[in-house]
Amino acid sequence: MDKHLVVIGGTAAGMSAAARARRGDPSLSITVFERTGHITYGSCGLPYYIGDVIKDVNKLITYTPEYMKKERNIDVYTLHEVTNINTQEKYVKVKDLKSGDIFKQPYTQLVIATGAIPIVPKILGVEHKNIFTLRNVEDGLRIKELLSSGRVKRATVLGAGFIGLEVSEALRNWGIEVTVFEMLPAILPQIDKEFAVLVEDELQKNSVKLYKNTKVVEFQASGENVIKILTEDGRNFESDMVIASVGVKPNTALARNANISIGPLGGIAVDKYMRTSAPYVWAAGDCTETYNLVTRKPAYLPLGTTANKQGKIAGENVVGGSAAFPGILGTQVTKIFDTYVATTGLNEMSAKDAGIAAVSAKIVHTDKASYYPGSKYIHTKIVLDKKTAKVVGAQMAGSEGIGKRIDVFATAITAGMTAYQLNELDLAYAPPVSPVYDPILIAASAGIKALEKA
Amino acid sequence: MDKHLVVIGGTAAGMSAAARARRGDPSLSITVFERTGHITYGSCGLPYYIGDVIKDVNKLITYTPEYMKKERNIDVYTLHEVTNINTQEKYVKVKDLKSGDIFKQPYTQLVIATGAIPIVPKILGVEHKNIFTLRNVEDGLRIKELLSSGRVKRATVLGAGFIGLEVSEALRNWGIEVTVFEMLPAILPQIDKEFAVLVEDELQKNSVKLYKNTKVVEFQASGENVIKILTEDGRNFESDMVIASVGVKPNTALARNANISIGPLGGIAVDKYMRTSAPYVWAAGDCTETYNLVTRKPAYLPLGTTANKQGKIAGENVVGGSAAFPGILGTQVTKIFDTYVATTGLNEMSAKDAGIAAVSAKIVHTDKASYYPGSKYIHTKIVLDKKTAKVVGAQMAGSEGIGKRIDVFATAITAGMTAYQLNELDLAYAPPVSPVYDPILIAASAGIKALEKA
Repeated sequence: MDKHLVVIGGTAAGMSAAARARRGDPSLSITVFERTGHITYGSCGLPYYIGDVIKDVNKLITYTPEYMKKERNIDVYTLHEVTNINTQEKYVKVKDLKSGDIFKQPYTQLVIATGAIPIVPKILGVEHKNIFTLRNVEDGLRIKELLSSGRVKRATVLGAGFIGLEVSEALRNWGIEVTVFEMLPAILPQIDKEFAVLVEDELQKNSVKLYKNTKVVEFQASGENVIKILTEDGRNFESDMVIASVGVKPNTALARNANISIGPLGGIAVDKYMRTSAPYVWAAGDCTETYNLVTRKPAYLPLGTTANKQGKIAGENVVGGSAAFPGILGTQVTKIFDTYVATTGLNEMSAKDAGIAAVSAKIVHTDKASYYPGSKYIHTKIVLDKKTAKVVGAQMAGSEGIGKRIDVFATAITAGMTAYQLNELDLAYAPPVSPVYDPILIAASAGIKALEKA
Repeated sequence: MDKHLVVIGGTAAGMSAAARARRGDPSLSITVFERTGHITYGSCGLPYYIGDVIKDVNKLITYTPEYMKKERNIDVYTLHEVTNINTQEKYVKVKDLKSGDIFKQPYTQLVIATGAIPIVPKILGVEHKNIFTLRNVEDGLRIKELLSSGRVKRATVLGAGFIGLEVSEALRNWGIEVTVFEMLPAILPQIDKEFAVLVEDELQKNSVKLYKNTKVVEFQASGENVIKILTEDGRNFESDMVIASVGVKPNTALARNANISIGPLGGIAVDKYMRTSAPYVWAAGDCTETYNLVTRKPAYLPLGTTANKQGKIAGENVVGGSAAFPGILGTQVTKIFDTYVATTGLNEMSAKDAGIAAVSAKIVHTDKASYYPGSKYIHTKIVLDKKTAKVVGAQMAGSEGIGKRIDVFATAITAGMTAYQLNELDLAYAPPVSPVYDPILIAASAGIKALEKA
């Protein structure tokens, strides 16, 4: 049999793998099977689609199957679900979701990029037609259709993580009442409390009702369209739609059934070359687990940036390369209304969990020269390893100005820089761009003082 | 004699030195002499003051002498010019510019922070009352007074460097005709041509008349207020005011007269601890020359960021510390109307000059997800050492989004990262903040391809 790469999943990791393999080997046969109707869509853009910030869903879709065939000679089949992997005989079983036909597709190399699936909370009544999760284009279309009908006056979000809060903003764009329920005592669990509080203030300012420490225990249909929401503490609420945004989990059913090793966090186990436990089988993206660069411990953080990078690496190695994925820092950023919030590396809690004696410092400063019109405050917290003085994490919240400042911390952490080295960096300054001491340097300096006191 | 620190110069480097020394030694006597009427002013903010973006000049001034006395126990004398340094007998001679009195001030330690002085071009007629340089608060006040009089319909800027162009924008804010003359064939000499061209387009879009390759040879008074400007190529122009912005030079007269060593670039020579050649004499800021972190060669780039850092180091070492200044990358950023432009490390020319075989790559990408409303293009060029694959420089131009992205490059260069390591960084992504592959990573990837082809 000729060399034939089969890729399961046509979004970030899968298409990156296919495209990179094609670049490395122009003669390889490449086939991609995608369960949904679309490939290469930016699922991170879905909240902006349902919030009508983006009008046309096609803007979220980078490539079509036709483009991939014509420009890259990659065969892409959408609405085709792989139902089985046979690693002994090296084939996958595929179901054409339109015709119902099932066929076998042999491979010489296989990349599993099945992504993550939204966790559907185990709540009585969760199957109500107006309760949604938001993961793929079809979900986005369904949700926006309902919002566009004008029948939704009250919407509810379950879960106050990054996506849940982005969704709450999107729903407020429709001028409707928005309520968020969070089981935990705090929103945004990746972020230390003092930063989460800034986001809570922003939600309040924008009339999003937030109930923390509140567990939803039942949904009841009330008439044709209304959902009654019962909480553990005995309260009840009414809503015209619910979006459950309580997290995702790696989609590993195919891999498990094929006896491919699963890691301690439930994702497909891969080495740094993106090899699974089965020969000729690679995996990349949200279905896999990876390592934290700072702690060197397993990490599961499904993000498009990581998926793209891992896909490229798998694709390069499929055709004989030896690219390696170094691990992640867990860098994340989002905008909630007008407040941006970001994190990279470890926070105080995760440093403690990792057994690192940490020292931290927090500062508030303007993003531009304080006298420059439109300058706004940003909050910065730096987390240092007490023993080595190395920067192990940072968090920021405030104006748009934090968006790429967090990347300076990410770069410094990756390079193993100490607070002293960070403090010496020759960073860009002009009054419309930064204060003369950038908040990054002010945080480094505060970190040094904290270290010296500790 | 009790320990007595004398500091010459009360802006960035001088006041940083004084403040840091105070923190290290609460009992030290500290006296600062400042020639102008103001201390701790942000001279980088002056273009925004004359452009009336900042209405109140006091906003540019961080501290007053009264504050420094009360809060820090530092004696600050403005309008006091040091006229002589005697390193043998350890005193300075000081002239009180108001009374004319001259007195001796002994020191046990001396910090020279005399800054830079604007270069007044040697052009016939340059002493005309409406021809200015812009360096200190008094300059700013005089220029703004003239602009506010309403008598200026045409203004001229000499020199198309960062400051000259900021000044041209400031003048356009008054709705007047603005002309810039540049002797060299290109504007912004720190920046490669393809980036300079983007700024030229922005000047044109904003009706700033730019004459490159044009040397002004004479100014003639024409009536009471009009200046006739004659160029080498035989043309002549009329203007109601001229701001000469052809650069600055280290203010070293005092040091030279005291036989303190001057470096190859004309700045006061200091070691990494900011020690001069004379015992008990330190120097910091724009009057000194430093080292380029990448080339390890002498560099002169008078910037407030560097002055602040060096001042702190001098102050720390004056009281027994051993802080060291690592050198500079030459990171610079500015905003010209709506175009931001930045550079760090080496460009192609300076890499060549430094004997580094360089490979570079240029990319254009949006600053946010391309589908996100308001996303704008930014241009990024990465310069790599062909032999080591290390990042040695970067330039960016476009939207505000470049302002802190350049700092990621600065951090990577400082850490000695290769293009491969840069390409793997876990940077922040959310559609309102960045595309899924940040332009930094796209540039790294393009750099890798260029390396592999080279």
